[in-house]
Amino acid sequence: MIGIVGAGQLARMTTEAASALGVDVVVLAEQTDDAGAGIATRTLVGSPGVPGDLGRLAEVCDVVTFDHEQVDLGEVRALEEAGRIVRPGSATLEVAVDKARMRRRFTAVGIPVPRYEVLDGPAAPSAAVAAFAGTADWPVVLKATRGGYDGKGVWPVADQAEADETCARAAAHQTPLMVEEMVPITCELAVLVARRPQGETVVWPPVETTQFGGVCREVLAPGRLDPATATAAVAIARKVADEIGLAGVMAVELFLAQGALLVNEIAARPHNSGHWTIEGSVTSQFENHVRAVLDLPLGDPALTAPHVASVNIFGPDDGSDPATHLGGALALAGVHVHLYGKRARPGRKLGHVTVCGSDLDDVRARAWAAARVLGAPGLPKPEPEGGPHER
Amino acid sequence: MIGIVGAGQLARMTTEAASALGVDVVVLAEQTDDAGAGIATRTLVGSPGVPGDLGRLAEVCDVVTFDHEQVDLGEVRALEEAGRIVRPGSATLEVAVDKARMRRRFTAVGIPVPRYEVLDGPAAPSAAVAAFAGTADWPVVLKATRGGYDGKGVWPVADQAEADETCARAAAHQTPLMVEEMVPITCELAVLVARRPQGETVVWPPVETTQFGGVCREVLAPGRLDPATATAAVAIARKVADEIGLAGVMAVELFLAQGALLVNEIAARPHNSGHWTIEGSVTSQFENHVRAVLDLPLGDPALTAPHVASVNIFGPDDGSDPATHLGGALALAGVHVHLYGKRARPGRKLGHVTVCGSDLDDVRARAWAAARVLGAPGLPKPEPEGGPHER
Repeated sequence: MIGIVGAGQLARMTTEAASALGVDVVVLAEQTDDAGAGIATRTLVGSPGVPGDLGRLAEVCDVVTFDHEQVDLGEVRALEEAGRIVRPGSATLEVAVDKARMRRRFTAVGIPVPRYEVLDGPAAPSAAVAAFAGTADWPVVLKATRGGYDGKGVWPVADQAEADETCARAAAHQTPLMVEEMVPITCELAVLVARRPQGETVVWPPVETTQFGGVCREVLAPGRLDPATATAAVAIARKVADEIGLAGVMAVELFLAQGALLVNEIAARPHNSGHWTIEGSVTSQFENHVRAVLDLPLGDPALTAPHVASVNIFGPDDGSDPATHLGGALALAGVHVHLYGKRARPGRKLGHVTVCGSDLDDVRARAWAAARVLGAPGLPKPEPEGGPHER
Repeated sequence: MIGIVGAGQLARMTTEAASALGVDVVVLAEQTDDAGAGIATRTLVGSPGVPGDLGRLAEVCDVVTFDHEQVDLGEVRALEEAGRIVRPGSATLEVAVDKARMRRRFTAVGIPVPRYEVLDGPAAPSAAVAAFAGTADWPVVLKATRGGYDGKGVWPVADQAEADETCARAAAHQTPLMVEEMVPITCELAVLVARRPQGETVVWPPVETTQFGGVCREVLAPGRLDPATATAAVAIARKVADEIGLAGVMAVELFLAQGALLVNEIAARPHNSGHWTIEGSVTSQFENHVRAVLDLPLGDPALTAPHVASVNIFGPDDGSDPATHLGGALALAGVHVHLYGKRARPGRKLGHVTVCGSDLDDVRARAWAAARVLGAPGLPKPEPEGGPHER
């Protein structure tokens, strides 16, 4: 029995994969109607923020893993000290959830990251930003070192006035900050890695991701990269996995900028940039996560088709539910629709579609056509406006 | 919400597919630990044999479908008369579950079946068998017209003495019988069909199945057939689906004998001969069953690789659990393991493995290697002894 902290769509898709292997899942769900609750063998209602709830979960399963990172690391460490198996463990999570710690750790071992400074020195954050911008030049990017995801906790600032404002707002919320150069991004990549506790590792081909408003909208596998860049990205991802002692699946998100690769973020769990693997790869990220946390041999990450496109489905602005358009999307040839059973709200991530095929333009066109049918009005065109963008 | 009568492995795999589409499932399970119970959104404990239990299921779902055929057709008709949606409906089920009715119906519309006679005339069954054998020649096959599956209810008899004995045993159990010619089988095929209530139909490429002891052990997709035979098999399966007004997925099992195709059995539900479709076809039988019973557009049944082999996993003779050998099987390249979470018992169907690839011998070898690792001792070699066999 695998225990999953959280019961969102990642828990749901992990459970689908676990079920195929005959493996039971218990989820720690905030609500009984969470996306991952109905399908789990067992649902504990609770929260990792409530003292004792992680322990209740650990008691009824063989290994604890995660749907999200909003966990108290002290509690995770306490579980480990009590002899519970947690994968990934606290030593991995403390790097994954803290951008400052991650940047420092990676810098120390030669994993490339954007130029940065953590704003925890003696100087006032505002003054430190000024000094950093004096060498890196405006605009710069302020980031919360913890708690950010999907573009939250990331604030590009154009000048000192904007920086002062952001620093003041962060101070009011006691949000620790770092400042980073604005990277002139050519494209964004993600590399999915699965690693067993003792080191066996498989890496999926690097993918190209497109963000709008800091949120991933489209994933193309394989990414349109020259072979040397793809090889370098895989090597970086392997190095990260070894460095943080990964047990499970991880996504390493990278910037490609002026020919160089820079690690932007990591997520030590199955990730939106890997949903395409369900149909697009021999072994899905969810199955390999199950296999990795159970310390079972990992499966083949090879693609099942020359090209795979995956597009996220968000709640339309009018509040309507994409599920009501399911038939229209399924009428499109070769479209794999995934809906997460979540209540529709404008902008909420409710599902994704994946198309596999031999022609890149064709698979993208079909995936976006399905996304439009599922009711996301005003979706941008597949090819966003050029120029650097930041998340 | 789809309601499934029964909670075996077919319900489990149907639920995995439904979950991906964001569709909830309620199962009517005999026991809370049935294979399909843990994963369902909701489990009602009950039995289609208990008056009122089908009605309880129908009350909490939008459409009722089936994991098995052990249902009282009178109760199904009563549900339909009360306005409940049941797919496939009673008009389909009454043909699918009664071999005598099926043979007569198919004969009437020109769907080829083995030469047969239903033993419900004025003559004693034993005498009718003698008369039939007088024209068809010994051996002949006696079959229970209802309730048989996996080789149960099928009795080849070599002579009058054996026929008398089987007829007497059947009479003691009030089992209605039919007699059939012993078909000189070249190979056995199955054709999977999905059909929407108003007629949209998709047909997967015909597969070759190998039975040992009347139970399916291996499925090869596509079957090794000449194109004319494959085309004819597809045409027969479409004709059957239309004739019985199918709504859902059905398997048509055929004999190829002396160049001719004969329908042996049909199962108006997802079927063991279609488990390979989970990885081996663009749309699995389980997803298309969900789509068909919800009257949604059907998905592409094309293969994802040139060759797919699937081998069933049974409980080893020593009572051990194949799940304990999961790691060994997953260590083999490209093997998709499905275990159903059922308690291991010798001979019980507990799972299956599927391998996709470009070389038939290679995918078969890997699938059988995985099956052996999963602990089925004494499994026959992939290629059984030649000669006619009957189920």
